[in-house]
Amino acid sequence: LTASKIVTLTTDFGLKDAYVSEMKGVILGICPTAIIVDITHDVRQFDIRNGAYMMAAAAPYFPNGTVHVGIVDPGVGTERHPLILETKRGFFIGPDNGLMIMAAEAQGIEAVCRVTSRSYMLSHVSGTFHGRDIFAPIAAHLLNGIGIEEFGPPQTEFVKPTFSIIEKTNDSLVGEILHVDNFGNIITNISYRDLNTPIGIFLQVKFPRRNLKLNLVKSYGEAKVKEPLALINSHNYLEIALNQGNAAANFEAKEGDRIVVSQSISTT
Amino acid sequence: LTASKIVTLTTDFGLKDAYVSEMKGVILGICPTAIIVDITHDVRQFDIRNGAYMMAAAAPYFPNGTVHVGIVDPGVGTERHPLILETKRGFFIGPDNGLMIMAAEAQGIEAVCRVTSRSYMLSHVSGTFHGRDIFAPIAAHLLNGIGIEEFGPPQTEFVKPTFSIIEKTNDSLVGEILHVDNFGNIITNISYRDLNTPIGIFLQVKFPRRNLKLNLVKSYGEAKVKEPLALINSHNYLEIALNQGNAAANFEAKEGDRIVVSQSISTT
Amino acid sequence: LTASKIVTLTTDFGLKDAYVSEMKGVILGICPTAIIVDITHDVRQFDIRNGAYMMAAAAPYFPNGTVHVGIVDPGVGTERHPLILETKRGFFIGPDNGLMIMAAEAQGIEAVCRVTSRSYMLSHVSGTFHGRDIFAPIAAHLLNGIGIEEFGPPQTEFVKPTFSIIEKTNDSLVGEILHVDNFGNIITNISYRDLNTPIGIFLQVKFPRRNLKLNLVKSYGEAKVKEPLALINSHNYLEIALNQGNAAANFEAKEGDRIVVSQSISTT
Repeated sequence: LTASKIVTLTTDFGLKDAYVSEMKGVILGICPTAIIVDITHDVRQFDIRNGAYMMAAAAPYFPNGTVHVGIVDPGVGTERHPLILETKRGFFIGPDNGLMIMAAEAQGIEAVCRVTSRSYMLSHVSGTFHGRDIFAPIAAHLLNGIGIEEFGPPQTEFVKPTFSIIEKTNDSLVGEILHVDNFGNIITNISYRDLNTPIGIFLQVKFPRRNLKLNLVKSYGEAKVKEPLALINSHNYLEIALNQGNAAANFEAKEGDRIVVSQSISTT
Repeated sequence: LTASKIVTLTTDFGLKDAYVSEMKGVILGICPTAIIVDITHDVRQFDIRNGAYMMAAAAPYFPNGTVHVGIVDPGVGTERHPLILETKRGFFIGPDNGLMIMAAEAQGIEAVCRVTSRSYMLSHVSGTFHGRDIFAPIAAHLLNGIGIEEFGPPQTEFVKPTFSIIEKTNDSLVGEILHVDNFGNIITNISYRDLNTPIGIFLQVKFPRRNLKLNLVKSYGEAKVKEPLALINSHNYLEIALNQGNAAANFEAKEGDRIVVSQSISTT
Repeated sequence: LTASKIVTLTTDFGLKDAYVSEMKGVILGICPTAIIVDITHDVRQFDIRNGAYMMAAAAPYFPNGTVHVGIVDPGVGTERHPLILETKRGFFIGPDNGLMIMAAEAQGIEAVCRVTSRSYMLSHVSGTFHGRDIFAPIAAHLLNGIGIEEFGPPQTEFVKPTFSIIEKTNDSLVGEILHVDNFGNIITNISYRDLNTPIGIFLQVKFPRRNLKLNLVKSYGEAKVKEPLALINSHNYLEIALNQGNAAANFEAKEGDRIVVSQSISTT
């Protein structure tokens, strides 16, 4: 796979400070033809799961060869390594803390590289801002066509976050709550592909404090007001919602909660 | 008119989520040379008038051929159609709900097309995110030089919002309050062109709960502190303000209020 | 020096309104190949020191020839002049109010021009929005390769803000507090180059209401929890911090405060 000129940025830096722009300056200094797109810089600070969801939501809509940089990095300054993941459709650059795994696995990971070569970082690496000093220059050199094998040795293991793991048994899927949006809609880490059932069937959904039977519908409007429903959201993940209500509050569910989903046999 | 490579985005999606970036990914996938400029993504949610003002304020400052995409869409998922408006200076793409009309009419509407061809949308159109699945790809195909007649049939009627309409009588203009800014300045939908009077004259301005005689000045500083004034703002609309005070609070005026403006005869 | 195609924007306009986008439209209309990068638009309103710090922080990371536009302009509409500063590494455009001086001086100022030629401004200059009507077009013409001598006469004097001045005596540096960040870390206007001492030594730091002896370390983690420390931050300025604590609150220090720094003789 050859990198395109498109690079995306996902961070928890916010836009009030100059940090994000410094990364862009570094990228343009190394690759003047780079096309830089912000995914979001308002990831909840240090919240890897929240950042992972943003990357997994957005990456499918970018063209082949896009380089995705993700920086939500509670461990900056410690010994975790910078990684490059090459997938069937693009590249992911970030700390080895699980942030990029969901997005990368959805595209099919082809190779993993631990970046060790100092020649692809800024000459002075600060202790506190690896986004600018390490990850931005790596991205720009990838955009310039440097192969991932030039950056360092292959790595076979990497941090795999719990929220990227789905357990499949004969009759159920075990996942977790990835995100609760502003409306209280519950977004799970179970994708359309994992679920593999037709619209219209009934699902049995078990939260820690609730057990529900829900119709898998196409849009909120198909349920009565305040009635619970399941749907595949616009990012292709299973979502549990109340039509015009707050599902998370109602079902006492929060991010990180385990959920068990199975097809409902009875239809009563 | 030929589309340039510049496309602007005006939405109420905010920048906390990945939505806006997904639109950009789709656009760059179809038109890799697109130059994407954000107008704002902080339109008040579902507030078509607020979005319309943002588009009308910004569009005049973009070069000929710019493609403007506006998405403030309380009716997403219902039967309202996607429209393309071609003007003397550019293109406007968005839902048929009035959002684009002020901005487009100021440029002179030349042709209107109802988009029906599925070939210019994403292959899978979600029920909830037409910005990404319908409007972004249409914009990118326009940037690629596809003529508007390729997207669907001409349409003669479209939703025309009240805030785009000025009634003119012999001696007065009837309009409405388009926007109250953070300082309480009252921006009307009456443009410099509509008003057509020289700086320095006195205007009679009638709000629902107040009737004022105001000097049409060039800048806030020409009135005494806390004194009311009228001026043509930097977006070429008539604005009623208090120098260093809050006009909207003082005159009990709010967005959507009807206003009647006439030239004042007496100067006492 | 020749301008590159990169232009950065630093303003206090926020992103809720269309203002920033209007500047971008104007720039692209004059220089269609411009690459526009936002530093930040969330400078505290009318706070020149805050804006100056953002520009000084970001500018070093942009390539040679970058054009930096800064607009934090309490005096818009008054007689202060638009300036262009040419440095060894780039260009700075903004009002003559001190905003750009720190960033420009760090690069070495080569020439200063007072912009008087109306041919490089929009044909209609509003009283309230010089960012769009004056500074954006100047920037775009610079990107197009117009030499700074074309814009107006050289100017030898300009407003030099106190926060850009360091007094050096035989054994001490007198500066001021430039910025207090969200964590209460105290960033001074004393740069790494001014300080010119090795990591590991002890510094005597005098705030108006406190006198401290601090170890100059490499990262927060080298001090005990709640213990004060000095370090060179990621923007190369001297920073006084408490490891996991709020230094500004603890030392009753605020932006603008005078500080005196000297090397500590005793090490007790």
